[in-house]
Amino acid sequence: MYRLYEFSSSGNCYKLRLAMAQLGVPFERVEKDITRGETRSDDFLAINPNGRIPVLVTPDGRTLPESNAALCYLARDSQLMPTDAFEQAQVLQWMFFEQYNHEPNIATSRYWLHVLGEPEKYADGLKEKQQKGHEALAVMERHLQAVPFFVGGRYSIADIALYAYTHVADQGGLLATELSGNQGVVGASKSTAGLCWYAGLKARSSGWVLHGKAAGVTPCREGITDSDGGSGA
Amino acid sequence: MYRLYEFSSSGNCYKLRLAMAQLGVPFERVEKDITRGETRSDDFLAINPNGRIPVLVTPDGRTLPESNAALCYLARDSQLMPTDAFEQAQVLQWMFFEQYNHEPNIATSRYWLHVLGEPEKYADGLKEKQQKGHEALAVMERHLQAVPFFVGGRYSIADIALYAYTHVADQGGLLATELSGNQGVVGASKSTAGLCWYAGLKARSSGWVLHGKAAGVTPCREGITDSDGGSGA
Repeated sequence: MYRLYEFSSSGNCYKLRLAMAQLGVPFERVEKDITRGETRSDDFLAINPNGRIPVLVTPDGRTLPESNAALCYLARDSQLMPTDAFEQAQVLQWMFFEQYNHEPNIATSRYWLHVLGEPEKYADGLKEKQQKGHEALAVMERHLQAVPFFVGGRYSIADIALYAYTHVADQGGLLATELSGNQGVVGASKSTAGLCWYAGLKARSSGWVLHGKAAGVTPCREGITDSDGGSGA
Repeated sequence: MYRLYEFSSSGNCYKLRLAMAQLGVPFERVEKDITRGETRSDDFLAINPNGRIPVLVTPDGRTLPESNAALCYLARDSQLMPTDAFEQAQVLQWMFFEQYNHEPNIATSRYWLHVLGEPEKYADGLKEKQQKGHEALAVMERHLQAVPFFVGGRYSIADIALYAYTHVADQGGLLATELSGNQGVVGASKSTAGLCWYAGLKARSSGWVLHGKAAGVTPCREGITDSDGGSGA
């Protein structure tokens, strides 16, 4: 069985829980609290010298850090990865965009505000992160004007990677006209393209989050299922 | 023929010039000066809505932003990409590490110091970037204690991706015991593991840079060939 070293509220870890649930891949979870430095212990550094979660461990014991690399490994030869070589490269293009332009800004804003709950301590950095986060959301919005999913007209791990922190962007204080996981923000959007993508992803992920509950798969967003018709979290 | 929209001194663009030279893929270059905002024009945003170089354009006119996604596309089914699925995921692991932990710190330090030449303007941010850059180099150094290349015991695009900004790290003021592109720094390293990798990559890249000169392939490091036996730059 696969093992996932993770921090439950991390969007990067949520990506892997969601993909494994949708692919029907059983896995066990080992929680590591990053706010207590549990990924910087000698034991954990032996698993990932970069001291970060998630780390995916294969059934035969090989370790794979980096959420998007693990997504690609899990999704190979599946319906979550296109078969065309150029479309596979486009999946990677959006995943690298996610890790360079999206996650460092949106996830970090959310970490400061929502996970650590220290808005005053990080006030200076927060403004820049939120601005760059908005820019990343705007790039997504622009792309989605013409297509229903990020690559090849079909749902793929590129969508999963970008949904992970988009659906909790409001917890990082990103309240704007760009697409966002907050219902109120969505309602205020000037565009419907991002909303359609977001609503579709929300529908796709919600059922699996519910399903995943019994299998130990939980959402990284407290209360998300409240707006999903009370399906329970 | 492939076309590469690039900024010559960018390490991200250097990755693609080096890989295409080593793979024998002919290409033409279109220079975009990022210091003059040439990637934020309407014309360029139509090519890449994220407003960044490099962008690879295939012979049939499809565009692919993100250096590491383009590396994967070019290297598919070649000697620069492992054939094993888990090793392919490990290549991605190190590429995502490069874009998350390495490039944002080392390339940005170098951009402020070397490309823009404004150390005083960026003094505050520089200290943090250099510290995180050192941490990234230390993760690489630790990994290389046990292996000659980053993945599978063989040279791959993971090495190319990590070499690109490592070999100009000294231009970002990263002078430490970790592996680095600066000859003096290399000589001061406490470890030989990183040095062996660095020396090997330097030897592999130098010949191709020389070869590439006639084909329009230039190094992103001025004077790098001075220390390569005067092979010319």
